[in-house]
Amino acid sequence: MTGEPFSAVEIIIAKRDNGRLTDEQIDWVVDAYTRGVVADEQMSALAMAILLNGMDPEEVSRWTSAMIATGERMDFASLGRPTADKHSTGGVGDKITLPLVPLVAACGVAVPQLSGRGLGHTAGTLDKLESIRGWRALLSNTEMLDQLRDVGAVICAAGDGLAPADRKLYALRDVTGTVEAIHLIASSIMSKKIAEGTGALVLDVKVGSGAFMKDASRAAELARTMVALGEDAGVRTVALLTAMDTPLGRTAGNALEVAESVEVLAGGGPPDVVELTLVLAREMLTAAGMEGADPAERLADGSAMDAWRRMIRAQGGDPAARLPTARHTEVLPAPATGVLTRLDALAIGVAAWRLGAGRARKEDPVQAGSGVVLHAKPGDDVRAGQPLLTLHTDEPERFARAIDALEGAIDVGGPADPLPLIVERIAG
Amino acid sequence: MTGEPFSAVEIIIAKRDNGRLTDEQIDWVVDAYTRGVVADEQMSALAMAILLNGMDPEEVSRWTSAMIATGERMDFASLGRPTADKHSTGGVGDKITLPLVPLVAACGVAVPQLSGRGLGHTAGTLDKLESIRGWRALLSNTEMLDQLRDVGAVICAAGDGLAPADRKLYALRDVTGTVEAIHLIASSIMSKKIAEGTGALVLDVKVGSGAFMKDASRAAELARTMVALGEDAGVRTVALLTAMDTPLGRTAGNALEVAESVEVLAGGGPPDVVELTLVLAREMLTAAGMEGADPAERLADGSAMDAWRRMIRAQGGDPAARLPTARHTEVLPAPATGVLTRLDALAIGVAAWRLGAGRARKEDPVQAGSGVVLHAKPGDDVRAGQPLLTLHTDEPERFARAIDALEGAIDVGGPADPLPLIVERIAG
Repeated sequence: MTGEPFSAVEIIIAKRDNGRLTDEQIDWVVDAYTRGVVADEQMSALAMAILLNGMDPEEVSRWTSAMIATGERMDFASLGRPTADKHSTGGVGDKITLPLVPLVAACGVAVPQLSGRGLGHTAGTLDKLESIRGWRALLSNTEMLDQLRDVGAVICAAGDGLAPADRKLYALRDVTGTVEAIHLIASSIMSKKIAEGTGALVLDVKVGSGAFMKDASRAAELARTMVALGEDAGVRTVALLTAMDTPLGRTAGNALEVAESVEVLAGGGPPDVVELTLVLAREMLTAAGMEGADPAERLADGSAMDAWRRMIRAQGGDPAARLPTARHTEVLPAPATGVLTRLDALAIGVAAWRLGAGRARKEDPVQAGSGVVLHAKPGDDVRAGQPLLTLHTDEPERFARAIDALEGAIDVGGPADPLPLIVERIAG
Repeated sequence: MTGEPFSAVEIIIAKRDNGRLTDEQIDWVVDAYTRGVVADEQMSALAMAILLNGMDPEEVSRWTSAMIATGERMDFASLGRPTADKHSTGGVGDKITLPLVPLVAACGVAVPQLSGRGLGHTAGTLDKLESIRGWRALLSNTEMLDQLRDVGAVICAAGDGLAPADRKLYALRDVTGTVEAIHLIASSIMSKKIAEGTGALVLDVKVGSGAFMKDASRAAELARTMVALGEDAGVRTVALLTAMDTPLGRTAGNALEVAESVEVLAGGGPPDVVELTLVLAREMLTAAGMEGADPAERLADGSAMDAWRRMIRAQGGDPAARLPTARHTEVLPAPATGVLTRLDALAIGVAAWRLGAGRARKEDPVQAGSGVVLHAKPGDDVRAGQPLLTLHTDEPERFARAIDALEGAIDVGGPADPLPLIVERIAG
């Protein structure tokens, strides 16, 4: 009657009753949703049924392929160079993409990094880079390919052409309580990375209070699901579960994190940021077939910094420009003397967000200079009354709610139970 | 920020994670959905979570109250007479409302019956009565009350004022695979019956192939849930589980069922229709406090027929008018000689629907004269080649698909496993 081979209701009912969806049903429902034939209220009921009843590995794989098929696929074969990308599930102070992309490029592997913006308590890579004067996030596919050929490194916004089903479905899940479906998270991330055309992929799956997945077993399940999807699609994929119980490095914000990333590229920077950058770089290089490369040497000899400058300039940015700073700061002292045993990632993330570094809704602006600077990390000795955190914002009325977010987030001399920086490695 | 005390997402997530919704959350989400503040895609995700994770008795009771609170409530205290109503979950050939309402009125209990139209393979009471020349289904509340006072019996369409949340939610569930949620079915039915203001209620919950609930244990669960909701709201409520493995009586259609109902009111009619009408009448009278009334006597002495004629005339109908008949008939013979052991209710219902008695979409018209007449019922002897069914329609091209629906629906001489007419009685 309608010219459609299935009805949305029969597919919803099949999954509701804990059945398996066929390849044809999955292909149709994803495509028909993108075309507007399946309505939002139908897809949200299906998403809830998937969240509660799950999908088997073949269903997730087909769902991912169906999302890719709604858009274009990029192809970097013409580069004549291996490609590798990284995806982080998001964490507080997680600026690793910034030093990592030019570092891997400096080792001879091209990195086509499509990034997003921040939402909620985790900031976005594009927001951070936009604090560099002149830098622009939007590139055409041709500009992206040219820059990959010339510089070997690009960090830009994902275009509208890649997996449009995912963009529509992600927005729907956000308002219908269905974000937390592991199979839909995995297919959302992997559909974009596979469509992007990278040859190798390293997944940084965060675990801990500041992570989307608080729980290591669920994070591992997500990681295994994504590794299988990548390998199925011919992308060499490895996942690391890494710590997000406390912020990475000593800054959470936009320009503050750019400055810290530049320190790492200059051979300095906080030890945890340097270590994670090098671990991820080695994984990307190995997955891309470049086991012999030495990323530590590329940091030390300045070639990673050179790649950074070329990458920023290629997108209109001035790598030598002074970074913006916030108009107001407030220092929070350590509450006691002793060993800092806990500095909660989620609380710091929410404080930075409330100071203006993040946004509550997609259309909100962010403040380039706002955020939190940490003067100590868990394991360090602190002294009562000495500076522990400095809060930065352009709007001083934001301090009070940021400080509220930090209630109960700091322990001095208590029991220590930090996660190791690298919790687990998951490969195909 | 929005002036709303809750967000839809937090309520969806609470139910998704198998939590209990608070009274305040339920009141808000039902009201906010009716106001359009909670979007369709949010309510459908919540409905799926409710279907899969359930609600406890207090949640269902509050959900029902919240739906009632979105509209008006009727009150029949001014009648000075007890009131009772009946609801059937719908079956093939289920014309019981037609003789039952005037019969109970003839015993001195007022019956405010708000009915619906047919959808799918079960026909609707209003569609049947509209085959009577001049009869109209739409009454104002004042007209309804006046007729209840004057005649004691009314069968009319439910107005827009009763439980508007239910109308909106029912339409949504229909397209999102969430019709089959027992708690939502129970609150949908009971919100309208409680808002309607009846003092007593008898629920006829059908079981078997032609019923919405094929399975007796799920039908009993639905019945118990509805009885509890009625009693909680101060409505004396009893449920009967009754057979719907084969059609009720010897007709399935619109005018065909009116004619059969008039036979019952005239003291004749098929034994199963007479028996179920009397059993339900006694339940309604007892629940309304009239244990002493004798409905069989009111059938025999013609007073039930008198009440029918007054009821039809009060709504503009001519009870003496000739009923419409279909322009074409086709006779199907018995396939063998022996005892008819099975005549499947669902198959007959689908055949009648395809002949034009029912509708596929709300806005479709129905044919007054079309349907199926049964010349034998399970347990009767039949002879090969003698008429078993007569199909009626205005459009002869409909015969082929109706006959397709009857494939495998008829057994002669096979094992017999009929349901008893009254399967179970469930009271508070």
